Amino acid sequence: MPTAAQMSLNTATVKEQCNLQQAIEGCARHGIGGISPWRDKLQECGADEASKMIKDHGLEVTGLCRGGWFTAEGSLTNAVLDDNKQAVDEAVTIGANCLVMVVGGVLDGTTDLQSSHQMVEEGLAKTLEYARQFNLPIAIEPLHPMYAADRACVNSMRHALDICDRLGDGIGVALDVYHVWWDVELEAQIKRAGKDRLLAFHVCDWHKNTNDLLLDRGMMGDGVINIPLIRSWVEREGYDGLTEVEIFSAEKWWKEDADLVMRTMVERGLSAT
Amino acid sequence: MPTAAQMSLNTATVKEQCNLQQAIEGCARHGIGGISPWRDKLQECGADEASKMIKDHGLEVTGLCRGGWFTAEGSLTNAVLDDNKQAVDEAVTIGANCLVMVVGGVLDGTTDLQSSHQMVEEGLAKTLEYARQFNLPIAIEPLHPMYAADRACVNSMRHALDICDRLGDGIGVALDVYHVWWDVELEAQIKRAGKDRLLAFHVCDWHKNTNDLLLDRGMMGDGVINIPLIRSWVEREGYDGLTEVEIFSAEKWWKEDADLVMRTMVERGLSAT
Repeated sequence: MPTAAQMSLNTATVKEQCNLQQAIEGCARHGIGGISPWRDKLQECGADEASKMIKDHGLEVTGLCRGGWFTAEGSLTNAVLDDNKQAVDEAVTIGANCLVMVVGGVLDGTTDLQSSHQMVEEGLAKTLEYARQFNLPIAIEPLHPMYAADRACVNSMRHALDICDRLGDGIGVALDVYHVWWDVELEAQIKRAGKDRLLAFHVCDWHKNTNDLLLDRGMMGDGVINIPLIRSWVEREGYDGLTEVEIFSAEKWWKEDADLVMRTMVERGLSAT
Repeated sequence: MPTAAQMSLNTATVKEQCNLQQAIEGCARHGIGGISPWRDKLQECGADEASKMIKDHGLEVTGLCRGGWFTAEGSLTNAVLDDNKQAVDEAVTIGANCLVMVVGGVLDGTTDLQSSHQMVEEGLAKTLEYARQFNLPIAIEPLHPMYAADRACVNSMRHALDICDRLGDGIGVALDVYHVWWDVELEAQIKRAGKDRLLAFHVCDWHKNTNDLLLDRGMMGDGVINIPLIRSWVEREGYDGLTEVEIFSAEKWWKEDADLVMRTMVERGLSAT
């Protein structure tokens, strides 16, 4: 059960309430050990200023969310690749442990999952080549299969690790329990990943009666995911990083006071994570 | 591209518009070769009467939907097992090619996916034992992972086939493209299944901007699934059964005239399936 100091706040969890400075100060107030900004929050204040604020408060940066979206323009345009290079630059500037990749969905107007997979892998390879110059790890986040069409067509640990096998050093996975908890292979694939490729560990919960594909994620303990069990599998491989809390919750947690959200996150870290 | 005669109507596709008799007569009117009733429709008129109506119209019965829900009562109660035996009896009475199993979600009030898996497998084994007496094939339908919590905790072809491997003869899978289209392993797992274990082939489509977890399924051609490709994989293994259309669509197809739905289904069979 992670203590506050062993947890990290993904800014999406309080995206409606906090700018980056407020999120950072909240983490400090609640003794939360790390932060993982989304790029929109970062760009509001700039990466340099963000880096300074984060350092001033002694927070670890468990990741930058997000690069990817390789299929967004129908081909690997310079715009797409440059945006990913910029994401690498930003991640390096703030000292992030990794750049989290949401790889993009099925190519618009097509049913061509295979070409989408291929474009994603080429985009990852090119971004990885750039990131290696800075020793910045690239973390593929396998997203839940319900996002295969519109957000990310890499939807299992197996697929993500197959890609890692092909691309070599410097790339691994960001494991978010929300996306992979249902997978009968999860324990085996975590073992396969091993410590070096487990770059981030994200938690939230799956409400039994989920009513929205994107914005009804639950606080740890409010759903059906056995988070402590999955955490034990990750830690058995030697993962000793922070536990990052990322909750998209339009109807509940985005409407609450940010301090209540962070207090609850810390409590549920101890009781349900 | 299946012709009308090579297609089957799952009654869920017109569940708001048609009782079983109306669905059967609709199939006859549109030259649709088969039907797959849900048990609620069957029970309205009784399995014997249903059987007679189906035979009178010369329809093949591609399946009965559905047995399963093994985790619904927290243990494998007699009520659950008896209901599955009754489903077997009904399937035999109407001459169904298989009994389709929606196996049940995570045990209520728990986060125990592993025990849920175990209970499902025991329930399948017991139902299979009964069904073998009648040579009725049991078809596990791997459901989309977004239903793991509340409907079915078998969510991939791999998991379903692992169970089939353990349980032996008389059990296979009902492959619905909606549930498995995203899986990078799909082609390989269809190959692994082989003709003998491909017991049913269900189609509909995944809307790119799906807005509901259950009731926003699309007509073939209106989404991102490459149905002809998946069909080619199934047929390469020797599958020569009908292509069954099962669409849950609260906002669109359940509000249309049933003849329009069936006409469209036949057209899209030829153009997008």
